[in-house]
Amino acid sequence: MIAVRPQTLVNGIVADSLAVTDRGLLYGDGLFETLAVRNGLPQRWGRHLARLQGGCKRLSIALPDGSLLAAEAARLCAGVDRAVLKILITRGTGSRGYRPDAVAVPTRIVQCLPDPGYSPDLARDGIVARLCALRLGHNSALAGLKHLNRLEQVLARSEWNDDNIREGLLTDQTGNLVEGIMSNVFLVHGDTLLTPDLARCGVSGIMRGLVLELAAHAGIACAVRDVALDEIWQADELFVCNSLAGIWPVVKCDNHTYAIGRVTRTLQRLLEELPDDE
Amino acid sequence: MIAVRPQTLVNGIVADSLAVTDRGLLYGDGLFETLAVRNGLPQRWGRHLARLQGGCKRLSIALPDGSLLAAEAARLCAGVDRAVLKILITRGTGSRGYRPDAVAVPTRIVQCLPDPGYSPDLARDGIVARLCALRLGHNSALAGLKHLNRLEQVLARSEWNDDNIREGLLTDQTGNLVEGIMSNVFLVHGDTLLTPDLARCGVSGIMRGLVLELAAHAGIACAVRDVALDEIWQADELFVCNSLAGIWPVVKCDNHTYAIGRVTRTLQRLLEELPDDE
Repeated sequence: MIAVRPQTLVNGIVADSLAVTDRGLLYGDGLFETLAVRNGLPQRWGRHLARLQGGCKRLSIALPDGSLLAAEAARLCAGVDRAVLKILITRGTGSRGYRPDAVAVPTRIVQCLPDPGYSPDLARDGIVARLCALRLGHNSALAGLKHLNRLEQVLARSEWNDDNIREGLLTDQTGNLVEGIMSNVFLVHGDTLLTPDLARCGVSGIMRGLVLELAAHAGIACAVRDVALDEIWQADELFVCNSLAGIWPVVKCDNHTYAIGRVTRTLQRLLEELPDDE
Repeated sequence: MIAVRPQTLVNGIVADSLAVTDRGLLYGDGLFETLAVRNGLPQRWGRHLARLQGGCKRLSIALPDGSLLAAEAARLCAGVDRAVLKILITRGTGSRGYRPDAVAVPTRIVQCLPDPGYSPDLARDGIVARLCALRLGHNSALAGLKHLNRLEQVLARSEWNDDNIREGLLTDQTGNLVEGIMSNVFLVHGDTLLTPDLARCGVSGIMRGLVLELAAHAGIACAVRDVALDEIWQADELFVCNSLAGIWPVVKCDNHTYAIGRVTRTLQRLLEELPDDE
């Protein structure tokens, strides 16, 4: 196994740059995926590819060739122990103006980047989170998508500098809880798992989908619905999740503390036991 | 005077590409300006620079050096009869993650692009517009900014293909009128000029500011407030404006027709009479 030096393929060719006329830059007109790489393999490839292609469909971007992407990912990840694979698909280059070019050829960017090096302590002992002041805007046309318009997340992540605070929780314009800046969020009330509905804003995370499936298989009662902010202060357990972190219990958010409870531990164990490719 | 071939300076150097690690691409983490170039000069430079710097301030992006930008713009525009000058400022390159790098050096992109070649007929005879189905999301943290998160505009502009329809009007999540996809919008009711307040969404256009100033100087009563969609159906006059088009009367929007009235013509005349650098 070799150490990771960042490497990027742009449309299949090793490159470190992109056309200044790319609509990914001009308008954030594209989508991305972030995958964990373990032992040379991008984890949960099928799920990430399906989301990426679903996103392209919603934005009317020509679907990337899945086998081509897989081959490029395999090329970058070969021999790599731990890393992050990032895939970006943009609508491609175009002339000035918002109108998409009917014959635009999407740009395909595949990057192998260093692993963030999260300590296993974070999953075991939990993290401290904070509630962000920034509120997400509603737009059902974009809700759920992991698109390249991420200024809301950038501004929210700029709200604090304390490295002990690992994640910021975001509410929407109506004050409902939506997600973490780089994660989805789950609450446990008694024996019931609860996560915000993402019909109006938020990113529909791969790990979120997996947690919902694991919970269903384990017979844990589960609800996806609007979650009022107040509900997190009354939660028995709170956790965030994403593809790189897995499940991180939240032990403190602002002035509220949480125990790491049975439901969170059960889901962590089930996730641990799951084959990497599921 | 020579014909325009697109040319780009990236951080002062002639280039046609940008680092794949630029946050402009990764998150749309930046701002842009679009200026008309006439007889070798970018028009209303001071206003555009002020907006760009104000936007950088709001996003906590280090302010670009105005005299450097001016020199680069002058270099690209020299000898060019008619063109478009586009300036993009991004937060610069960075490692993966939403958190802005405290020492990030912004990327400065200055481009001279072909003039869109709008016929003068559009200002004289007016345009046909349509009401878009897409509704803009509210976010006061981003409202007014000409930032690089433009997927809403891309999706709205994808709603039609009829070249006779020149602009799409956008409402917000509460159904109020906000702006055009690439323009701001004004209504005239009797002798009063009206344009939507942009506190929750929309781009605060340079031409919009100029029209408001011209109206004030001419003693035309003026209101900036929330505008219910219904109000456009009852308007006596309707027009859109931006830095490249100037003022375009709207003569038809969906099934409603409008006369080109006295207020619109007065503002067009005042704009025409204004020195280019104001």
